[in-house]
Amino acid sequence: MSSVIHRLRTPLIFVLLPVLLSAPASAQPSLEDPLPSWNDGPAKEAILTFVSRVTTEGSPDFLPVEERVAVFDNDGTLWPEKPLIQGIFVLERLRALAREDPSLWKRQPFQAALERDLDYFKEAGPEAAMEILALTHSGMTDEQFEAEVREFFAHARHPHFGVPYTELAYRPMVELLEYLRAHGFTTYISSGGGIDFIRVVSEQMYGIPPEQVIGSSLQKEIRVVDGEVVLWRKPALASLNDKEAKPVNIDLHIGKRPVLAVGNVRSGGDISMLEYSQGGEGPSLQLLINHDDAERESAYQEPDNASLRAAQKNGWTVVSMQRDWKQIFSSS
Amino acid sequence: MSSVIHRLRTPLIFVLLPVLLSAPASAQPSLEDPLPSWNDGPAKEAILTFVSRVTTEGSPDFLPVEERVAVFDNDGTLWPEKPLIQGIFVLERLRALAREDPSLWKRQPFQAALERDLDYFKEAGPEAAMEILALTHSGMTDEQFEAEVREFFAHARHPHFGVPYTELAYRPMVELLEYLRAHGFTTYISSGGGIDFIRVVSEQMYGIPPEQVIGSSLQKEIRVVDGEVVLWRKPALASLNDKEAKPVNIDLHIGKRPVLAVGNVRSGGDISMLEYSQGGEGPSLQLLINHDDAERESAYQEPDNASLRAAQKNGWTVVSMQRDWKQIFSSS
Repeated sequence: MSSVIHRLRTPLIFVLLPVLLSAPASAQPSLEDPLPSWNDGPAKEAILTFVSRVTTEGSPDFLPVEERVAVFDNDGTLWPEKPLIQGIFVLERLRALAREDPSLWKRQPFQAALERDLDYFKEAGPEAAMEILALTHSGMTDEQFEAEVREFFAHARHPHFGVPYTELAYRPMVELLEYLRAHGFTTYISSGGGIDFIRVVSEQMYGIPPEQVIGSSLQKEIRVVDGEVVLWRKPALASLNDKEAKPVNIDLHIGKRPVLAVGNVRSGGDISMLEYSQGGEGPSLQLLINHDDAERESAYQEPDNASLRAAQKNGWTVVSMQRDWKQIFSSS
Repeated sequence: MSSVIHRLRTPLIFVLLPVLLSAPASAQPSLEDPLPSWNDGPAKEAILTFVSRVTTEGSPDFLPVEERVAVFDNDGTLWPEKPLIQGIFVLERLRALAREDPSLWKRQPFQAALERDLDYFKEAGPEAAMEILALTHSGMTDEQFEAEVREFFAHARHPHFGVPYTELAYRPMVELLEYLRAHGFTTYISSGGGIDFIRVVSEQMYGIPPEQVIGSSLQKEIRVVDGEVVLWRKPALASLNDKEAKPVNIDLHIGKRPVLAVGNVRSGGDISMLEYSQGGEGPSLQLLINHDDAERESAYQEPDNASLRAAQKNGWTVVSMQRDWKQIFSSS
């Protein structure tokens, strides 16, 4: 207790101030709106009600902190997916490789990608896309790949919005992530995108550290390169983290069933993750972002409407970007 | 700031006390020995010096909290591996299954396991062991498997020490884990053992939550069983987390290179993980536990001495259980 006595010699406010400023948010409930970019309505209400139910001590639905696990898809849920940002990165890498090795312009499927021949890929199926992913994402160390991704985010601009991709996190989702963490949740990404691609920017954009990012991954092996022990990226997929693979990888990384899962309408890629989250014993919440805002972002639908049908059947909360979000990005 | 004013109306000690009691350990350096079960000597010294170097602000080796990543093997590093505790569980499960299906007594490799015919397994190779692992660990939901493991730990006793396995965490290692966490480290397990087996007891035994456990894993798939969405355990390995696979899975789960890695002498299973930890740019520490204490635990060596040779070559710190540990278990 000697440090108590020592500290009391300084004016009281200097003792208390740093302590109070660093206290967890739950200790000082704010009267301010925690989700200012969300319009009042059923989606915002569903979020506030759920968080209150599971974090209020004495509530029958109270969850201890270690069970407050939330998972978020990335493309179309936390940032735009038209065009797919990692797709732009792949094309840029491919063009750079083709400058070094012009024969790529004459070899399929690289030629089709370089010439943006979408019909080729519709015909050739997913193997062709995988071949391009392998060429652009492997054959180097993890450190080299990370440097490539950093360089991409430093110079690339969104073709429509004209700003760096790192400025395109959806502001209402960043608020939601911060609100959840302030209430003891751990927030994870579970994306079909590449785990190593997202990890480069997830802390800066969403406050989500690398160890809380789950995504598609390549096979790797340990090697000694120039006398250094490195992980070498092999040209083969380890896991495509989409659809039914999402719950499996969530379990592998977290070992708990999330009580909150957020995905978006486009391909049905998040249905299984949301069903898994809902299938636990206790309270849970599922959100599905609907891209219906052609003016401020994009409007698109799923060919078979599977995600919206699943939402209706299971009572998931559909978030309309147009109706529920006051603002889409931080700078507009 | 209204809460400051409100709190000042209560006597000062009631304001300060909870705050000081909940402050992180680094804010009030203790004069007590943080590793009381470690004898003074080079191993304890190496640990204390390393932690001081990387956590003292202004030190050239200072590491921010997010880079303080430590990984620990489990069998032989955090608890005994003679016999392998998961091996006992496998045999017990197999016996229970053979009571329901006596034909297992007449089918290999199950017959050999039930009759403890070790020669059969030396001949048959790892596939035979995998077949037994698959039978005893799959064909059920994650929840069912967890219940089986819980039940095992509730009744099983170590054949030599006569106590529940959950009482056999090495006390010096539990102290080390707590000491590291008190200094901002995140502590992970990276084990050749099953990820779902270890996760059941890792929090209770080591203070390590499920999401910080990495281990061998089975393939799983999402299924609807009796109307519930569950993960179904398939009879096939997804990853054997041993040797060169350890760095790959550490990267998959954490996305950072650990600065501290701890393994043990027996099979060479931790060499690659320790090399990976040492191969980073900054300061790092590698510990290798040597089982040389026949009286208090076990004495055994590695057939080819590969781990000890790697330690000598790379300057890793060898921990002698006999010389460096004052006490092996919490109750002795």
